[in-house]
Amino acid sequence: MNAHDLVQEIIERKGKIENVFWIACGGSMIDLMPANELLKREATTFTSTVYTAREFCLMAPKSLGEKSLVIACSHSGNTQEVVDGCETALAAGAEVVALTDCEGSKIDNGKWTTWVYPWGEGVPQAEVPQGIGALIAAELLDQQEGYEALADMYEGLKQMDALLPAAREKVNAELGARFAELCQQHKFFYILGSGPNFSQTYAMAICSLMEMQWQHCCYIHSGEYFHGPFEATEPGVFYFVQLGAGECRPMEERALAFLNTHTDTVMVLDALEYGVGEVPASVRSFLEPIFFYNMSCELRAARGKVFDHSPEVRRYMGIEQY
Amino acid sequence: MNAHDLVQEIIERKGKIENVFWIACGGSMIDLMPANELLKREATTFTSTVYTAREFCLMAPKSLGEKSLVIACSHSGNTQEVVDGCETALAAGAEVVALTDCEGSKIDNGKWTTWVYPWGEGVPQAEVPQGIGALIAAELLDQQEGYEALADMYEGLKQMDALLPAAREKVNAELGARFAELCQQHKFFYILGSGPNFSQTYAMAICSLMEMQWQHCCYIHSGEYFHGPFEATEPGVFYFVQLGAGECRPMEERALAFLNTHTDTVMVLDALEYGVGEVPASVRSFLEPIFFYNMSCELRAARGKVFDHSPEVRRYMGIEQY
Repeated sequence: MNAHDLVQEIIERKGKIENVFWIACGGSMIDLMPANELLKREATTFTSTVYTAREFCLMAPKSLGEKSLVIACSHSGNTQEVVDGCETALAAGAEVVALTDCEGSKIDNGKWTTWVYPWGEGVPQAEVPQGIGALIAAELLDQQEGYEALADMYEGLKQMDALLPAAREKVNAELGARFAELCQQHKFFYILGSGPNFSQTYAMAICSLMEMQWQHCCYIHSGEYFHGPFEATEPGVFYFVQLGAGECRPMEERALAFLNTHTDTVMVLDALEYGVGEVPASVRSFLEPIFFYNMSCELRAARGKVFDHSPEVRRYMGIEQY
Repeated sequence: MNAHDLVQEIIERKGKIENVFWIACGGSMIDLMPANELLKREATTFTSTVYTAREFCLMAPKSLGEKSLVIACSHSGNTQEVVDGCETALAAGAEVVALTDCEGSKIDNGKWTTWVYPWGEGVPQAEVPQGIGALIAAELLDQQEGYEALADMYEGLKQMDALLPAAREKVNAELGARFAELCQQHKFFYILGSGPNFSQTYAMAICSLMEMQWQHCCYIHSGEYFHGPFEATEPGVFYFVQLGAGECRPMEERALAFLNTHTDTVMVLDALEYGVGEVPASVRSFLEPIFFYNMSCELRAARGKVFDHSPEVRRYMGIEQY
């Protein structure tokens, strides 16, 4: 399956899409967020919203209907909330596309279009949910209103593939051991980010750390930092700053300047030091969450080694009934 | 000023509004969030989005234009990010309405409509930002598409005024001392909520606790709890659950059932025990954040007494340059 043809077929069948809903849970929802941000920023004749799947069912928007495109994602294919969300969308007459890594899972049931994606080392970024979502958004933009940066988006995804291997080595060499040590010293810490990267600020907190490392932490929007959270800053409190290379960077820089003079414990992951600044500015903000996701994977693994806690280990998810 | 006439004048002057942007920072942004949720849920011919003000400036949506209504809020009237957001909106040709408590402040400069609201004990909920926002949203819905629950919204706001005094007494009597004690025992804890109430989950964390009490904590969406955060749950970890009385209640109930068997420290603030269930179901979800905001004020005050830390005290905000 490819995004260009999929979007073309949808528009041929349904006419112009008026609103897009991205529905998923946890890590899968996070993967779709940058695509939603792209449409929020660029689209002028249709709209885009992201929902955690159960809230989408419990508070379904009245604008959901025949002219809606619902993009769902469930990595396992068996997340009941996401399957329910697809059913809700289908019942409202919406076009539904479900992304999953698992062929034959609950969500791959023939009722809607299912896009089964590969996963694991070496898979190009264009073929996993963050990339697929960005391409679907970009194609929809282009085919419905024209999108000047369409080629940049395809090219930018290739640039991400090219820069990630060296970036992984660099983050491990320069930040891995220190990050694990700071986790040993702090039972709790804050992670800052903003813009489309905020999806990965949230992801680093709830997926990489709470879920995979049972590490307490909190995610803060860098622009909101000065409107409340900064009062909790003092020496001894650890802040991890995701310093983006896109339009929102000034928000991180301002927060970092304050942190550097008001706590003794700051770790900065600066996308500009890893080649992300080479990605075209037109699409950089929507692609750099891929960079932060991949670096989080390295840092959680570095922590996991020191704590003897593999990021694969769960105590509840998929083990208990809930 | 009143919401009905304001919206009528705007529509007479501009024609139909196609998109609404709510822009503010921190507590003021949080006040506008339930109104945005109302429009996300109900509107079918126009759209609504909320932004922290600086991100709105740095990543201004291309759909911002002549047919946009921008509702801004700055309690002090001097939040530069919000003034900048209004300038950005004005330059794009949008209709701008700024809410503030402070007549003659930077945002009350004659360039756009300014709605100066009163603040303090005894002011009706319809006259402060959460109520004003809900009424502007409801009036816009009604005047542009018809809104069956318009009368319920006005009535529901009066019901909130009526139930809050007894609710404040009850929360103080039943939860105040225990909440303060739990804060003494836990340097960090989690707060859960969902739906429009999630605005107040975030508010309790970043405003009432981080800002006003320098208490470390994190806000978690109850529906997302099972998709990552729950792995950090174990005895000794404190969770505060905002149990709403609206459509999203099942998400809180599910999280609470798990918490009750996987940690020894849960505090529940159940809106149904305070009369919120009497508010018409049509508008309840969008008004109950008012309840949770007011109860958070009581709980932070209760903590403040035990820690000898008045919620009025700041160490950075309005004191240092940043």
